[in-house]
Amino acid sequence: MSEAAPWITYRPELKVLDCTIRDGGLINKHQFSDETVRAVYDTCLEAGIDAMEVGYKNSPKPFPKSEFGPWRHCDEEDINRVFAGHDLDKTGLKLCAMADAGKSDYREQIVPRNESLLDMIRVAFYAHQVSEAVQMIEHCAELGYDTTANLMAVSNIDDAEIDTVLSAIKDTPAQVMVIVDSFGHLYREQIDRLYKKYATALEGSDKEIGIHAHNNQQLAFANTVEAIILGSNRVDATMFGLGRGAGNCPMELLLGFLRNPKFKLRPVIKLIQEQILPLKKEIDWGPSIPYNITGQMNLHPRDAMEFREGDTPDDYVAFYDDIVLDN
Amino acid sequence: MSEAAPWITYRPELKVLDCTIRDGGLINKHQFSDETVRAVYDTCLEAGIDAMEVGYKNSPKPFPKSEFGPWRHCDEEDINRVFAGHDLDKTGLKLCAMADAGKSDYREQIVPRNESLLDMIRVAFYAHQVSEAVQMIEHCAELGYDTTANLMAVSNIDDAEIDTVLSAIKDTPAQVMVIVDSFGHLYREQIDRLYKKYATALEGSDKEIGIHAHNNQQLAFANTVEAIILGSNRVDATMFGLGRGAGNCPMELLLGFLRNPKFKLRPVIKLIQEQILPLKKEIDWGPSIPYNITGQMNLHPRDAMEFREGDTPDDYVAFYDDIVLDN
Repeated sequence: MSEAAPWITYRPELKVLDCTIRDGGLINKHQFSDETVRAVYDTCLEAGIDAMEVGYKNSPKPFPKSEFGPWRHCDEEDINRVFAGHDLDKTGLKLCAMADAGKSDYREQIVPRNESLLDMIRVAFYAHQVSEAVQMIEHCAELGYDTTANLMAVSNIDDAEIDTVLSAIKDTPAQVMVIVDSFGHLYREQIDRLYKKYATALEGSDKEIGIHAHNNQQLAFANTVEAIILGSNRVDATMFGLGRGAGNCPMELLLGFLRNPKFKLRPVIKLIQEQILPLKKEIDWGPSIPYNITGQMNLHPRDAMEFREGDTPDDYVAFYDDIVLDN
Repeated sequence: MSEAAPWITYRPELKVLDCTIRDGGLINKHQFSDETVRAVYDTCLEAGIDAMEVGYKNSPKPFPKSEFGPWRHCDEEDINRVFAGHDLDKTGLKLCAMADAGKSDYREQIVPRNESLLDMIRVAFYAHQVSEAVQMIEHCAELGYDTTANLMAVSNIDDAEIDTVLSAIKDTPAQVMVIVDSFGHLYREQIDRLYKKYATALEGSDKEIGIHAHNNQQLAFANTVEAIILGSNRVDATMFGLGRGAGNCPMELLLGFLRNPKFKLRPVIKLIQEQILPLKKEIDWGPSIPYNITGQMNLHPRDAMEFREGDTPDDYVAFYDDIVLDN
């Protein structure tokens, strides 16, 4: 096919991962109803989405079950209840959980793949946790899972540290190394620079490069498209952008952009209308002014999240003054 | 200055135009209070913004004064009332109005520049109106105004027609030719292609290239940044993205990105909190699902606007079915 207008063509090897429940759970302590979680799963199937991340395999010690819903721990019995009948071979949809370095009892919580409905474990870590991340990836790969390496908050890490991480991950069995803009800070040229750094460091390893963007500056979709243009074949998005703080790359925009006829937009729009929009009454997410500000300043969204949960969520000037004077 | 990290430097020649009242008036028939309009003006002054577009110089025949507010016509007496004391030489802020080809009695409505507080007329036109646009630009330039040429809905025009327009505009006195993505349809690679086309056609004319983006796909800010990277020095934005349909490039994101120390973000955030956010109770704008869909399909936002004003603004599936089946 001619590449004169690449935006109307597609790359069959490009895979989309839905992380609505996993990332969205960071704003409601993973207190989703089974119905909502299953509806997201059914929508992924209908929409031709390649993978669904259902939550975290994190430890119930720091995240007690009295306070956090089942998708913070992803116990096998919860997975078996909600995803009964899941069959990768039949549907092509991979079920996936994330495990955080430093927060997961991964040696106990993650069972061999042939005893679980899960197909993939994504290992999330900060730069200083790279050694644990390598161990986690190796462990999960030995258990039979597909694995990915998700270096978080990359906008906040030294170049030298990123290089060290990439070099350590290169020799692991992880199939994917994900560019994670946790703070929603990166502009287009910074995405370019990171993508090229990742691609150069991982050359010859057969690893794919993924993109996971946050929407603090309304750039999550644009940065995702940018990574795709550069060659990224593993792309994260969430339904209606539901995700921590400013949220993520909206699935409804991403599928409207991708031209692989296997992707269907209508089921996503239906899910948003019936299941996700109603959550707006209970949960706040999206690129409001406080998230714009933390994104611009390359800060973790936690202060903005706290502010949005407080008594004066729209006192933008107070938030601006607080953050600018404190930094 | 080193260009290794261009995103923290700035181009002094880059100018920002606020079109909150002009574009926002397309969703409320320009029924803004004098207080709101003056507050936007005062904010432009405080924030270091280079130009403010206050409305349209359009004819009261198709837009009767009984139905439309003063900023649809920008009579000199309204301008004199609200912008009393305006002085470009003292403040550096240009006051500006738009005139639409086919909708303006421009020979009567536009008085000589030395009899008006206005400094600039922007001429908006569709491709088939280019001959009238050239006459309007020449007329306004003769009256002493700065002028720009705004070819609307460029995503919907033949390449050959764009070439013809560019060639006609090249010989006019317009200082700026603006890339206008009225439908919010364009992706990054399409912005690149158009920018290069405009730049090549206008080479040697000393014209600047402008960018006016709509936010249907949450790409207004990203596409504006893209045009800036390519060399665009005339940039439109609106407070809180207020504008027709999905709205425009948000000023608060743009000023957070630009590194010219003359731009100040805090006054913009204050205005948003005090004047613009309250408008959300009366007016609907922003990249909701119906606007996502018209943007993706390269359609005028009018159907989505009607739908959002109707009884079931969140029945996204009904809108999707309606638009997809009808196209």
